[in-house]
Amino acid sequence: MSKFIEFVIRKARGSNTLKRAYKSTVSSYLNTHVSEITPFNPIHSSLEGKRINLLVPSINKEHVFGGISTAINFYDELVLASQGYSRRIITTDACPESEDLDRFPNYTLVTCEVDAEYRSQIVPFNDRYNKTIPVSKDDIFIATSWWTAYFAQRIVKWQSEYYGQEIKKVIYFIQDFEPGFYPWSSQYSLAESTYKYKGPQIAIFNSSLLMDFVIQQGYSFTEKYSFEPKLNTALKERLVPVKDMNKQKKILIYGRPSVARNAFTLIVEALRTWVWSYPNASQWEIISAGEQHNDIDIGNGVTIKSKGKMSLDEYAEELKSSAVGLSLMISPHPSYPPLEMAHFGVLVLTNNYANKNLSNLHGNITSLEELNTDVIANALSDLCAKFEYDNSIGTRSLSSMESYINNKKQFDFIDDVIKNL
Amino acid sequence: MSKFIEFVIRKARGSNTLKRAYKSTVSSYLNTHVSEITPFNPIHSSLEGKRINLLVPSINKEHVFGGISTAINFYDELVLASQGYSRRIITTDACPESEDLDRFPNYTLVTCEVDAEYRSQIVPFNDRYNKTIPVSKDDIFIATSWWTAYFAQRIVKWQSEYYGQEIKKVIYFIQDFEPGFYPWSSQYSLAESTYKYKGPQIAIFNSSLLMDFVIQQGYSFTEKYSFEPKLNTALKERLVPVKDMNKQKKILIYGRPSVARNAFTLIVEALRTWVWSYPNASQWEIISAGEQHNDIDIGNGVTIKSKGKMSLDEYAEELKSSAVGLSLMISPHPSYPPLEMAHFGVLVLTNNYANKNLSNLHGNITSLEELNTDVIANALSDLCAKFEYDNSIGTRSLSSMESYINNKKQFDFIDDVIKNL
Repeated sequence: MSKFIEFVIRKARGSNTLKRAYKSTVSSYLNTHVSEITPFNPIHSSLEGKRINLLVPSINKEHVFGGISTAINFYDELVLASQGYSRRIITTDACPESEDLDRFPNYTLVTCEVDAEYRSQIVPFNDRYNKTIPVSKDDIFIATSWWTAYFAQRIVKWQSEYYGQEIKKVIYFIQDFEPGFYPWSSQYSLAESTYKYKGPQIAIFNSSLLMDFVIQQGYSFTEKYSFEPKLNTALKERLVPVKDMNKQKKILIYGRPSVARNAFTLIVEALRTWVWSYPNASQWEIISAGEQHNDIDIGNGVTIKSKGKMSLDEYAEELKSSAVGLSLMISPHPSYPPLEMAHFGVLVLTNNYANKNLSNLHGNITSLEELNTDVIANALSDLCAKFEYDNSIGTRSLSSMESYINNKKQFDFIDDVIKNL
Repeated sequence: MSKFIEFVIRKARGSNTLKRAYKSTVSSYLNTHVSEITPFNPIHSSLEGKRINLLVPSINKEHVFGGISTAINFYDELVLASQGYSRRIITTDACPESEDLDRFPNYTLVTCEVDAEYRSQIVPFNDRYNKTIPVSKDDIFIATSWWTAYFAQRIVKWQSEYYGQEIKKVIYFIQDFEPGFYPWSSQYSLAESTYKYKGPQIAIFNSSLLMDFVIQQGYSFTEKYSFEPKLNTALKERLVPVKDMNKQKKILIYGRPSVARNAFTLIVEALRTWVWSYPNASQWEIISAGEQHNDIDIGNGVTIKSKGKMSLDEYAEELKSSAVGLSLMISPHPSYPPLEMAHFGVLVLTNNYANKNLSNLHGNITSLEELNTDVIANALSDLCAKFEYDNSIGTRSLSSMESYINNKKQFDFIDDVIKNL
């Protein structure tokens, strides 16, 4: 080998990022299980009468927000509308602590070994290896995530064979296209299999955008319903007249490093481009809301300041005082922050995904078709420049989404669901 | 809190799998960079005359198989057909060692700082922070992965602005829908952005199945071509007459724990179901080929024996002696093992994905629409039972894919690509 070749190799060997891209060695620990599908084994129950079972990963305080909170609200309304069904909440991934049970004052905590008659039960079933849970001939199941749907689809098959009856409908509360939470993989396939299920299934979608996407992908359901996002009640109470909004040169980002589909690294990389391309960048403040993380120096004297998961009061203050927002969601689900920001007069930048284009929903929303650092930085500069030219621009069209802020029922199809159970 | 509640909580708290599903805390190290898009900065080159640049992650021996090997073959044929273009291989993720250069005897290794005139160059550009690489007005780029396409799309823009000329076409050699390698995330979006690129781009797809999938997703390209898989030459030489195949009760699985889309954990979980549901399971041997891993005891006295990445001789022997195969690929790409197995008389089980259904291609292939452990185990039992009933069943239709085993050129569109550059 020539000296020159050795020199070039030595020079270039510094950073080797290939491991990331072509990871061909397997670490000594070999995972051979899909932990999500740890068997969920039913056993005879002598109970009679309809009972709604909510299969939910957790009801622990630290998990009950966003998706799980919405699922519990739906479940509560369904039970109420049923006028007399018993109810059982089964947690599949975590066991509630005593303080978590405060939100469920009328429920009795029951162990899975007991075929208990309480009309309102909570049964932790996360630690279920070699255990069974009583399932009666009249039990009805609501699934709230792909693996709870996987269980429900197998329970109703067992129930049908064991009690000699038709297969009961599964109620599948779908809040995102969950295969998209994984690379193409075992989990992706198993999540997708819950949409390909051939038994009777009532799909209830969080948003018509998500429902349209899933149907366009070719999946079908016995019945399907969708509900639309609504402005959080506490935030609605904090919506103030335009004159009381004090818009400043501040960019509010939805910064959740642990949630891949919120594309945190892409946001940061785009802001690194923006600080050098937008002439007035150093006059702007950047606030990250959603999840606590270290502050990030992005160059040119600008730092992203993390405010973490704020109280609704604090969040409302940020919404009222921010001129520009940046919130990405790589999913057909609309996601809440862009809608919240838009209604609080923030010029918000977000992204299209498949059939999703939120710019149709509110004049304050700009939605990008293609995502890369340059495109995001340029669009952000446009919004900042618009605000600098006219600082009341975001506060003019505050109520373009009537359904988002009116007081109508969110789950207006619940009687139809009950009727067909 | 009652004693009873405390008891239930204590009992149920054993396993808490929720961390997996709801990872809401961020580890102390915060990644704020997308390492794949570390800037790739061009600089003036005074060279003239067309030069084909292959942007490839690595040409190191340990990486040059499968996709990279196919891309290099295409590049070699393109250069040959060009009748006189210069050539430069630029590695973006790894630096070649001296033994890696043996495969490229006519190339000169050049550092990125030099605007060298050699007609065949290899330039390592993995360690490129604060560095530049000379790009002339006549340079043409071939991208072979999403991040090399990301670079190419930006280089030709710079080239157009810097030299005052039209934007040159990017040649994008696409061997899978790479966004599918990620959950919905920053990387997913950036990978997808390379298909949404609005500039002139020639897409060359590894298989018409993949091309059809990408086009059905709504992406478009200035020109598009596809080529079909061909049986590896060395394997073709080892294809023996039916009478010399010695089929045994052996299941050959394509077992690659590090490649998510090969769904290794799903295969193992399905085999765990199969060993207890198929009466003769303990008479069967299970061999895993593709990547070395620990042997796995799956119960009922059956063990998956890992043979790792075998030599082609060893692999051919396994193909000839295996009765049944199981090879999953969560992607529209056909993947090679199911086709290889089928042509060696193996009854092979694989999966559909979107428009992909390999059972149309060969009588020995069974392809599942829905993937879950029960469905896979049942289908596997069917194939094993078929073989036990008639042990020559797999060796009857060995040549149903004429294009897969004939000697015609794989890249028969190369003259069209050259003509339009």
